[in-house]
Amino acid sequence: MPASASPTRITVLSGGVGGARFLQGLLHWSAARVEAGGTPAEVTVVANTADDMWVHGLKVCPDLDTVMYTLGGGIDAERGWGRVDETWHAVEELKAYGVEPTWFGLGDRDLATHLVRTQMLEAGYPLSAVTEALCRRWQPGVRLLPMTDDRVETHVAVPDDQAPSGQRVVHFQEYWIRLQAAVPALAVVPVGVEDATPGPGVVEAIEGADLVLLPPSNPIVSVGTILGVPGLGEAVRRTPAPVVGLSPIVGGRHVRGMAQQLLEARGIPVSAAGVGLHYGARPAGHLDGWLVDERDAAEVAALEDGGIRAAAVPLMMTDPVATAAMVQAAVDLAAPRG
Amino acid sequence: MPASASPTRITVLSGGVGGARFLQGLLHWSAARVEAGGTPAEVTVVANTADDMWVHGLKVCPDLDTVMYTLGGGIDAERGWGRVDETWHAVEELKAYGVEPTWFGLGDRDLATHLVRTQMLEAGYPLSAVTEALCRRWQPGVRLLPMTDDRVETHVAVPDDQAPSGQRVVHFQEYWIRLQAAVPALAVVPVGVEDATPGPGVVEAIEGADLVLLPPSNPIVSVGTILGVPGLGEAVRRTPAPVVGLSPIVGGRHVRGMAQQLLEARGIPVSAAGVGLHYGARPAGHLDGWLVDERDAAEVAALEDGGIRAAAVPLMMTDPVATAAMVQAAVDLAAPRG
Repeated sequence: MPASASPTRITVLSGGVGGARFLQGLLHWSAARVEAGGTPAEVTVVANTADDMWVHGLKVCPDLDTVMYTLGGGIDAERGWGRVDETWHAVEELKAYGVEPTWFGLGDRDLATHLVRTQMLEAGYPLSAVTEALCRRWQPGVRLLPMTDDRVETHVAVPDDQAPSGQRVVHFQEYWIRLQAAVPALAVVPVGVEDATPGPGVVEAIEGADLVLLPPSNPIVSVGTILGVPGLGEAVRRTPAPVVGLSPIVGGRHVRGMAQQLLEARGIPVSAAGVGLHYGARPAGHLDGWLVDERDAAEVAALEDGGIRAAAVPLMMTDPVATAAMVQAAVDLAAPRG
Repeated sequence: MPASASPTRITVLSGGVGGARFLQGLLHWSAARVEAGGTPAEVTVVANTADDMWVHGLKVCPDLDTVMYTLGGGIDAERGWGRVDETWHAVEELKAYGVEPTWFGLGDRDLATHLVRTQMLEAGYPLSAVTEALCRRWQPGVRLLPMTDDRVETHVAVPDDQAPSGQRVVHFQEYWIRLQAAVPALAVVPVGVEDATPGPGVVEAIEGADLVLLPPSNPIVSVGTILGVPGLGEAVRRTPAPVVGLSPIVGGRHVRGMAQQLLEARGIPVSAAGVGLHYGARPAGHLDGWLVDERDAAEVAALEDGGIRAAAVPLMMTDPVATAAMVQAAVDLAAPRG
């Protein structure tokens, strides 16, 4: 792993809420470095698009939008997704029309983003160009790239007594929002991923980075899906940049989301070390370094045994200052002194 | 003109706001007849669809929606169009994205109607089937039929110093909303009308009616466009039912809208008689009877000279009771006693 004491070009593989909060911390870290006379980080975000869904004829990209709204100052910070000062009149009316799905939360302000995106997609622009256009308004302070311009949608098999096979398959959003991840995930399939190609600039952003970071996003349906895009996982395994990740599992539980359920579905131990070793040491795997929470300090040894440099630091993203300290720890782990 | 003292099957050719208010009066009139021991009217509305517009990827049908919302109890009564208790967050956001057109008012509640309609159209349903589906929610108390399932859009030529021809062509909605009908209409063209066919049930509703009514809607871009659909105007000229209209011009001015500007563009006198004679006496024209306002009583003679039975009554639709009296006057004119 080449040393990079002060990385400038930083590429982050991000999911939604957790990734967006991590990126806030990264930009805070960069701003602090600039204040101290250093150079600003040039951050490229490769975002998961497998949570995307066509709903009511509109293309909705939850992870891209969460990153864009969070960094652009439009997010509802408490909820973690969607727009601040949001109203829900259109979706109330869709329910009154009896139109399915009724469980998908489409705010009135948020709708505008999906209308612009859908119209541009239908005019022939790829998702990457649409995302760039939307970001011209939001100015998120990062270059935001969809992992792919191709359609990839994660589906989850869940138990269904009524089905002859005993199971049925639902869109990831339905598993997460309607079923609240409260039923077992029998299988998690990113439909279309094997035919997808990395979006424009994605491989270059990974290969040309000074540092690649895996934020504490969901290791199966967020980062895992990004790494599953043919050529993209390969770029992470081969990049000259160090690759450091942060555990979404703290004290044997996910901090937010439903990583736990999905790790169980894949037979992966629900622990900080379990996830780190699932990513694996480069070049066969995807990691050089892995940060675990202080509470999981005992797991550092297992990671080091697996060829992954590890350290235990506070991993709760309570605010941008705390998150910036996590970024610094990741930078330190990537380029150890001495 | 056959007598029809108590018409049951009443077919109305309607535009938006004026037509919808007239229909409220017609239903009020029908309810009063039921209270008096009579039969309810079976009202079919053939609505203008040439104001329709694709905007932000959505199919918007102003006249259909105004009739549906007005009779279904969802209208903003003061504004005359759109939904009551409406918010405008999506359209604010579209403006923030810099997406054109910014002048078209799309409320958040209203958006749901356009999302449902657009998705059904894109799934292959004709506009008539979509309208029927939307009306299942609104229960307007009339059978609401688009004049055609084909795309017809009225365009208006306006002066433009910058254009080599000295004029440019805008969608009717742009003329009406953005330009506020404040510039001369050099030409008014219902694009597509000559290739349109009447929607399902439209010709039958006209031929099978006991009475056909032309409410005080715009004689050029609302009723005029409906009559311009090949086969539909013919049905009005040939139906065994009497055809009676109500003047939108009172005292030499339109009561609401921009009939005046468009009549001038066509060289039609802006008067109650001018409009009645423009429709003309059947079978060459479209009318048996024409109601003018009391203020225009002096014009009755000119209409009678033109072969159109005419009467002067109060024509201001101030409330459903006043409008119901206009309906009764139209019924009386269709079937004169003795």
